Amino acid sequence: MKIAILPGDGIGPEITAEAVKVLNALGLKFEMETAPVGGAAYEASGHPLPEATLNLAKSADAILFGAVGDWKYDTLDRPLRPEQAILGLRKALGLFANFRPAICYEQLVSASSLKPELVAGLDILIIRELTGDIYFGQPRGKRTATDGHFPGTEEAFDTMRYSKPEIERIARVAFEAARKRNKKVTSVDKANVLETFQFWKDVVTEVHKDYPDVALDHMYVDNAAMQLVKAPKAFDVIVTGNMFGDILSDEASMLTGSIGMLPSASLNDKKQGLYEPSHGSAPDIAGKGVANPLATILSAAMMLRFSLGQPEAADRIETAVKAVLAQGLRTPDIYSEGTTKVGTREMGDAVVKAL
Amino acid sequence: MKIAILPGDGIGPEITAEAVKVLNALGLKFEMETAPVGGAAYEASGHPLPEATLNLAKSADAILFGAVGDWKYDTLDRPLRPEQAILGLRKALGLFANFRPAICYEQLVSASSLKPELVAGLDILIIRELTGDIYFGQPRGKRTATDGHFPGTEEAFDTMRYSKPEIERIARVAFEAARKRNKKVTSVDKANVLETFQFWKDVVTEVHKDYPDVALDHMYVDNAAMQLVKAPKAFDVIVTGNMFGDILSDEASMLTGSIGMLPSASLNDKKQGLYEPSHGSAPDIAGKGVANPLATILSAAMMLRFSLGQPEAADRIETAVKAVLAQGLRTPDIYSEGTTKVGTREMGDAVVKAL
Ligand SMILES: CC(C)[C@H](C(=O)O)[C@@H](O)C(=O)O
Ligand SMILES: CC(C)[C@H](C(=O)O)[C@@H](O)C(=O)O
Repeated sequence: MKIAILPGDGIGPEITAEAVKVLNALGLKFEMETAPVGGAAYEASGHPLPEATLNLAKSADAILFGAVGDWKYDTLDRPLRPEQAILGLRKALGLFANFRPAICYEQLVSASSLKPELVAGLDILIIRELTGDIYFGQPRGKRTATDGHFPGTEEAFDTMRYSKPEIERIARVAFEAARKRNKKVTSVDKANVLETFQFWKDVVTEVHKDYPDVALDHMYVDNAAMQLVKAPKAFDVIVTGNMFGDILSDEASMLTGSIGMLPSASLNDKKQGLYEPSHGSAPDIAGKGVANPLATILSAAMMLRFSLGQPEAADRIETAVKAVLAQGLRTPDIYSEGTTKVGTREMGDAVVKAL
Repeated sequence: MKIAILPGDGIGPEITAEAVKVLNALGLKFEMETAPVGGAAYEASGHPLPEATLNLAKSADAILFGAVGDWKYDTLDRPLRPEQAILGLRKALGLFANFRPAICYEQLVSASSLKPELVAGLDILIIRELTGDIYFGQPRGKRTATDGHFPGTEEAFDTMRYSKPEIERIARVAFEAARKRNKKVTSVDKANVLETFQFWKDVVTEVHKDYPDVALDHMYVDNAAMQLVKAPKAFDVIVTGNMFGDILSDEASMLTGSIGMLPSASLNDKKQGLYEPSHGSAPDIAGKGVANPLATILSAAMMLRFSLGQPEAADRIETAVKAVLAQGLRTPDIYSEGTTKVGTREMGDAVVKAL
């Protein structure tokens, strides 16, 4: 079992170190290799996703990814910016299926912006298509407009697109996932305006015929953004495209009030996967030892389950995380009165102890 | 002052009737003419935006629009569906500037999904570009993919695009609006992924030079979806494209917990405008006399201010609406214990009386 460890920027190295500590405490045998990515890689070698890092990622069964990005790289040309590393990895490894759970932990209900009754027990799974849509669609660029409102002026453009097999495979992932949960899929589209998402809706409806035991409904993306605020618990699995999924998964994770707790997984058709916390690199608190490592530790658990065939080890980690929460340990992002504030390392140590 | 009244479907006719009643009570002279739109127009004449309705809209100084849509039209071909009427009006009249305030009324704070301290006093304005972007970009359609992940398979596609003058004019609208408020504009983009929105960001930054008294910041759309949940009061004016604006404005209005109170305006460069409530046609409660007419009444106030040059009359309506809320009158959507439940007509009558 080969794991590529890509710590990245900001708090990435600190939180990844705790997840590695937890993995090492499981008593399993892993081959782990670390490589720079994002701004750190740019500093070291002039590119956010150096060839050696990409090759390591390709050769591994799974990638444990910290986070990338920092304001200081904002003025770089786009191809050199840290986030290109994550887009490059998704594309090169074909990581088309992104799993973004939005779970509200019992003890953290009060951290949510939403009223407790709306989020207590929340457990939804957003499945975002990750290698298609307007993120990668060609052609794109700048040109002189030849039609539209102002022909003859400068314009920029991108192409949204989805092919039938791309939609089919992500729909199957969603229906399979729903089968192991509450058997309900909400497909989010904008079929009333976009050709791409009328097609999305049609293909998802077709694939649904193979999953008669799972309920399917369709919702416009604007309505989904509203319903997430109004009644998030009404959802089970949400499946949507890359762009809408980017927006809705972040909205949903913020609803829980504890984005520092939320893992994510991005898988290809060989179950090779990239695992990373849902939060970002938080350069403002980097190096201070206060970042919450639990999202990364829980990402390692997802990795054991989805890519490494170790579901028991995954369960052990998840149980240990619940135990430290029950003990009242909290990093500053999830701290509330009456609990015990701890740092990044103490939190990691506590999880190891609870194992 | 010529006003086209387009009641539309579902609760549209009921709520529009109350707004007309309020307009008639102002003691001003309007020329009003009513025409069918949406599903109602399709039933009457086979098209959701009949030529006569479009001509009336074009000839009016302002359009008061109810709402369109009903599940029963879902199986119609796209060009015949009710929502095409609203897209068609936007395009034909060049209504590029959509104003969507998200205001949390003092007495309605408890109706929000969010904790009271997060929404009390909320007053943000989302300015959405409404005639460009992927909504209208050509080419679009279906074809056989020649490249991408699955060449040779069926795919659907759309084109996202913005020209420089399109971005410039909506940026100016946003900066001008911010000048009359808290002098802060947040431009929402996805410059880290999309050519269109890197260009958007560059052009907004350039236009900002003419408005040194207004603060400008830039935010990615996924982050904006999160910040709206986390700390909505940190925003003043948000300006963004058609697609992102569709999602964020609905998310923001739902945050207030009283979408039944929120008006909207869509203007062209001649200040001709379409005014409509932010909520939809709610076919489930149509004809029952329980719909909240206040969003439509407040839309009429925006119409008086923006298109008809009657700011005092607009103020009078807004003051009257606050008065009826203070009297404790509530339609079912905003009802809470200790207040008085009223129907659509009683609410309209109360506003007239408060004038
Ligand atoms: C960094 C950025 C390119 C990325 C995306 O838009 O996919 C991020 O927002 C995410 O969701 O992982
Ligand atoms: C009905 C639909 C086409 C429309 C849109 O997407 O613009 C609606 O959602 C809106 O926001 O007015």
